[in-house]
Amino acid sequence: MTDRLDAQFAFLNEADRLKSVLRATTLVDGSRPENSGEHSWHLALYALILADQAGPEVKIERVIRMLLIHDLVEIDVGDVPIHSQNGQAHASAATQAAESRAADRIFGLLPKDLGTDLRALWEEFEAAESPDARFAKSLDRVQPVMANLMSGGGTWTTYSVTSDQLDARVGVKIAHGAPALWSWVREKTRAYFT
Amino acid sequence: MTDRLDAQFAFLNEADRLKSVLRATTLVDGSRPENSGEHSWHLALYALILADQAGPEVKIERVIRMLLIHDLVEIDVGDVPIHSQNGQAHASAATQAAESRAADRIFGLLPKDLGTDLRALWEEFEAAESPDARFAKSLDRVQPVMANLMSGGGTWTTYSVTSDQLDARVGVKIAHGAPALWSWVREKTRAYFT
Repeated sequence: MTDRLDAQFAFLNEADRLKSVLRATTLVDGSRPENSGEHSWHLALYALILADQAGPEVKIERVIRMLLIHDLVEIDVGDVPIHSQNGQAHASAATQAAESRAADRIFGLLPKDLGTDLRALWEEFEAAESPDARFAKSLDRVQPVMANLMSGGGTWTTYSVTSDQLDARVGVKIAHGAPALWSWVREKTRAYFT
Repeated sequence: MTDRLDAQFAFLNEADRLKSVLRATTLVDGSRPENSGEHSWHLALYALILADQAGPEVKIERVIRMLLIHDLVEIDVGDVPIHSQNGQAHASAATQAAESRAADRIFGLLPKDLGTDLRALWEEFEAAESPDARFAKSLDRVQPVMANLMSGGGTWTTYSVTSDQLDARVGVKIAHGAPALWSWVREKTRAYFT
């Protein structure tokens, strides 16, 4: 058991570094950039509170697990803001390869059974095809929209984002996993984009 | 539905403020104090990774939910470091009353069904009697021990904590919900306290 706990804590201590990865998005009060650790907490809370926005086939407990680990590869690769890459549908091949190496290293710290399970869960999230992953991705895109709205523009100002770009870069993806949620959020954004 | 989403987001936006509540504990690298938002993420990850340390009656998904919301009252009340209060078994009556008012206000932002459920879950955590709450409390006490160990002393140095105080203030409580975990962690702390 000692070896197993050594591996579990090697992972948990390494995961702490996610608290030092900064995102382009700020806190709701605009006071500072958000880090990817607290972002992951907020998203898991989003899943808990907005579970009624998920389709009946979504298992919210799996969504929460997915969101808790979804950004860990950023410890090695950093965060790539959506609007900075002109809203590309997918990360570049180079970024994807770097994230895959990061996943090898970070999930590889765990005991084999746990590492295999969580790496598969991360890959499911990245693929964005299963109902659970689609809902998780929708939340991951909604949360920065709310932060921008609350803080008076945020990354929309930083990257001079237009209303059409918002629809194309994030709206389509949010609507894919949580259509009613996107309708509601989109309505709230109208004041900013007029 | 619009009214319901208004209430759900009033809560989620208010919850963001937990990212600005600072704890006495630092990050593992000692670079800055940890905030209660990222702490809540790290603890939920602890539950996911250390689920095999829980007794068979523990439902780890409930533990994760509990840990995601366990510190929200700190938005109004702040964090009270364990060692600063000489390791009292319970918060003072004044602190408890303030936390209860904070819970009224914060969970009261939610639609009634959700607010009632989550407030009950928070009270279960605070009572530390159910198997789920006991395990959640154990993790909440273990994580700062690891941060102190990794960062070379942390709050043990700040508050001149002795080995006996560590046992009395946190060891007993960790062992209550996760005895094998405490044995392993306690062994790791020996080097610091000699």
